[in-house]
Amino acid sequence: MSDVAVAYANEHGERFIEELKDLLRIPSISTDPERAGDVRRAAEFVAEGLRSAGLEHVHLIETDSAVPRASGHAHPLVYADWLHAGADKPTILCYGHYDVQPPDPLDEWNSPPFEPTERDGNIYARGAVDDKGQMWMHVKALESLLKGTGSLPVNIRVIVEGEEEVGGEGIASFVGHHGGLLKADAALVSDTEMFAPDLPTLCVGLRGMIYTELEVRGPMTDLHSGMYGGAAPNPFVALAQMIAQMKRSDGHIAIPGFYDGIESPSKAELTAWRSLPFDEEHYRKTEVGSTALDGEQAFSVLERTWSRPTMDVHGVVGGFTGAGAKTVIPAKATAKVSFRLVPGMKPEATFAKYKAFVELITPRGIQAEVRLIHSGEPIVISTDNSYIHAAAEAMEEVWGKKTVYVRGGGSIPIVGDFVRQLGIPAVLMGFGLPDDNLHAPNEKFHIANFHKGIESIVRFFEIVGKV
Amino acid sequence: MSDVAVAYANEHGERFIEELKDLLRIPSISTDPERAGDVRRAAEFVAEGLRSAGLEHVHLIETDSAVPRASGHAHPLVYADWLHAGADKPTILCYGHYDVQPPDPLDEWNSPPFEPTERDGNIYARGAVDDKGQMWMHVKALESLLKGTGSLPVNIRVIVEGEEEVGGEGIASFVGHHGGLLKADAALVSDTEMFAPDLPTLCVGLRGMIYTELEVRGPMTDLHSGMYGGAAPNPFVALAQMIAQMKRSDGHIAIPGFYDGIESPSKAELTAWRSLPFDEEHYRKTEVGSTALDGEQAFSVLERTWSRPTMDVHGVVGGFTGAGAKTVIPAKATAKVSFRLVPGMKPEATFAKYKAFVELITPRGIQAEVRLIHSGEPIVISTDNSYIHAAAEAMEEVWGKKTVYVRGGGSIPIVGDFVRQLGIPAVLMGFGLPDDNLHAPNEKFHIANFHKGIESIVRFFEIVGKV
Repeated sequence: MSDVAVAYANEHGERFIEELKDLLRIPSISTDPERAGDVRRAAEFVAEGLRSAGLEHVHLIETDSAVPRASGHAHPLVYADWLHAGADKPTILCYGHYDVQPPDPLDEWNSPPFEPTERDGNIYARGAVDDKGQMWMHVKALESLLKGTGSLPVNIRVIVEGEEEVGGEGIASFVGHHGGLLKADAALVSDTEMFAPDLPTLCVGLRGMIYTELEVRGPMTDLHSGMYGGAAPNPFVALAQMIAQMKRSDGHIAIPGFYDGIESPSKAELTAWRSLPFDEEHYRKTEVGSTALDGEQAFSVLERTWSRPTMDVHGVVGGFTGAGAKTVIPAKATAKVSFRLVPGMKPEATFAKYKAFVELITPRGIQAEVRLIHSGEPIVISTDNSYIHAAAEAMEEVWGKKTVYVRGGGSIPIVGDFVRQLGIPAVLMGFGLPDDNLHAPNEKFHIANFHKGIESIVRFFEIVGKV
Repeated sequence: MSDVAVAYANEHGERFIEELKDLLRIPSISTDPERAGDVRRAAEFVAEGLRSAGLEHVHLIETDSAVPRASGHAHPLVYADWLHAGADKPTILCYGHYDVQPPDPLDEWNSPPFEPTERDGNIYARGAVDDKGQMWMHVKALESLLKGTGSLPVNIRVIVEGEEEVGGEGIASFVGHHGGLLKADAALVSDTEMFAPDLPTLCVGLRGMIYTELEVRGPMTDLHSGMYGGAAPNPFVALAQMIAQMKRSDGHIAIPGFYDGIESPSKAELTAWRSLPFDEEHYRKTEVGSTALDGEQAFSVLERTWSRPTMDVHGVVGGFTGAGAKTVIPAKATAKVSFRLVPGMKPEATFAKYKAFVELITPRGIQAEVRLIHSGEPIVISTDNSYIHAAAEAMEEVWGKKTVYVRGGGSIPIVGDFVRQLGIPAVLMGFGLPDDNLHAPNEKFHIANFHKGIESIVRFFEIVGKV
């Protein structure tokens, strides 16, 4: 059965890529209020793709606009299903997202972010791998089975969201209130990466996060630093002093109780990580490109990025940032500060500790406020279940290599909701590569992985359907 | 003689204000490359004003575009003179500037920055007091004397620049190379403020400054903080750690040797400062508006803003500063950092100490670079000269109160050049008020001070002409 579907996928592979390019041309930047129309256009594109693949009940679900969101507005979910495999067959919930990160800084792109361009066997575009390319593989795997064989080996529900890059509050609320409509036995998520090229990989853990804004106010209005410098509290200096007190130069986060309750990876997991093909110096040079790596030196790089919490600052809003000089002591400045959380940490508790510490270290003359923009729980998935085994087998068949289990440093908040709210395991079968430039200029997706990934998904459904 | 001129000024006062408004409508923002045409238009407006006032040899002087400038381009000087008072009369060099600071943040203005608006006896506009309004008083004082009496009691040269807000490299180079063309016995500068409303004030000291950019680089490209957080050095965190190491929360600047060689004010000067009408709590509430004042608590507020050096951060460029969330570890971030210098400090030496300390404290994995954008020397002017005495007397006549001597916390680099290169005393007779919002939204100029200031300048010329 799957051979027929794979033959169909091979025959139509070029068209699949052209369709993906059309989707990539839509600048569906969910954080940008001015792109709301484009975000909806991407949702409609996905719905149309599911419809022509042969899925049923395809429709947009307007998410609850009353749910508080940092981005300020709601983007629709796309739903579809095909439930004719029989009651004895499991139901797989396919998840992906059609929204993308902002493309800035624009001038560092070698080709325009919303004009997908092929170079060296890759497609370069914002969203190529995260997650339009990978989400589209689900749609095309389903099409290949339905058009190639006339049916699916399992029951399928598809849910695709448009707020993943801005916190995913809409789908979280939907899962919380209407989880029954997504009833399934396992979730399939393709929004992660392979540990190395041609190394089949399943991700079995993700860090959680809290994304915050730390706003500090000093003077009531912008002041001249000549007239007032020395007496007026400077919000930028205050922010610097506070951030430096929170994150030491050895990578240790000095917020009291921050590391309390952290669950370390098992010995077996740590042993497996040590056997992964990882060259720290190669990683430093080719992926990070800094003169040295940062962070807690007592932990390996994989531990530091997978199983240790972090604090990062993403930007500071306010003051004068134009060319040249302006001698202003601004009234306020706001730092975008996020923390990655690992198993054993709770977003609410971490935020409370952070907030309390900020209050404690706010300098004289400064008023500070912290705002929680969005959050997601960390998760770990047991490798001891049949869906994970099926996924590992499917990838091994396609790549001819043993599948490795890794974790991811990033956060896909909805995966935690699937696991906790729907009570189902999540299979994180991703086809990105380590140098795909997620969230950065020149994001890309390796075209060979797109095709092999579709084949892997087809085989996964087949194996699961034999259960 | 001066009574006739003052009568002329009173008669034409309303026109003077309307002309000033026309000048204020020109957005001559010298730091903004797109405003170069407007900057020139302002220069031409000033030249025309000097011409119709009756001055001679009015022309624009193109400054040397080869002089390195942070702002990247040259704005012209406006020159004029009237040298018929006789060889036995002194020559006064009137200095002002026609360029202005950027108006941002725009949304905090109650009326548009380049649409001068009268409210409560003030004109609100960018440049109203700094320095278009005050520079225009020179032009109108000269017009009142020339049109009212047919001559001037002293010889006059006028030089007005358009790069004061961006470092003044053009005029500095001109004074260095063609100082002879500005030969005079004293300089008159109206670019400072009165210590309190209706308190005639002469400024006899200014802080110097260095304005710098501190750029730090971590990863070679923007990275996803989920995937790389914990291993990739974060430029914003590094900047925060470095800034916090340079400026302690007690206001002390920890750069080694930073305070070396500082000359304290004399006992007599400190005693005079203590008798000034200064209420720290009123200043905190009405001018600064913060919950507490900042800085070195061992020094009074006037010392902290007049005779102590400072460090301020004006903005941080880079990363994500839009609405919502983007989880980026940016490749680089740049802080705009300036230091105010006091007598005994040299810009070059301070920059060298700062640069060396930055190198010392640059965190692992980070590459730092400091760039000097512009600088100016601190100055102190002796009160023991006839021009200062004449200015004090002129203001006392107009306001009916004893003139006080203060210092200014800001920097007018060219004043140092006049004193050092031309070897002449500078009279800093300013008519701004402490709440005029220099460099901030809602900059204003008190209209009564405009008129009384013109009268003071007229009387100053008359007293000096009697010498």
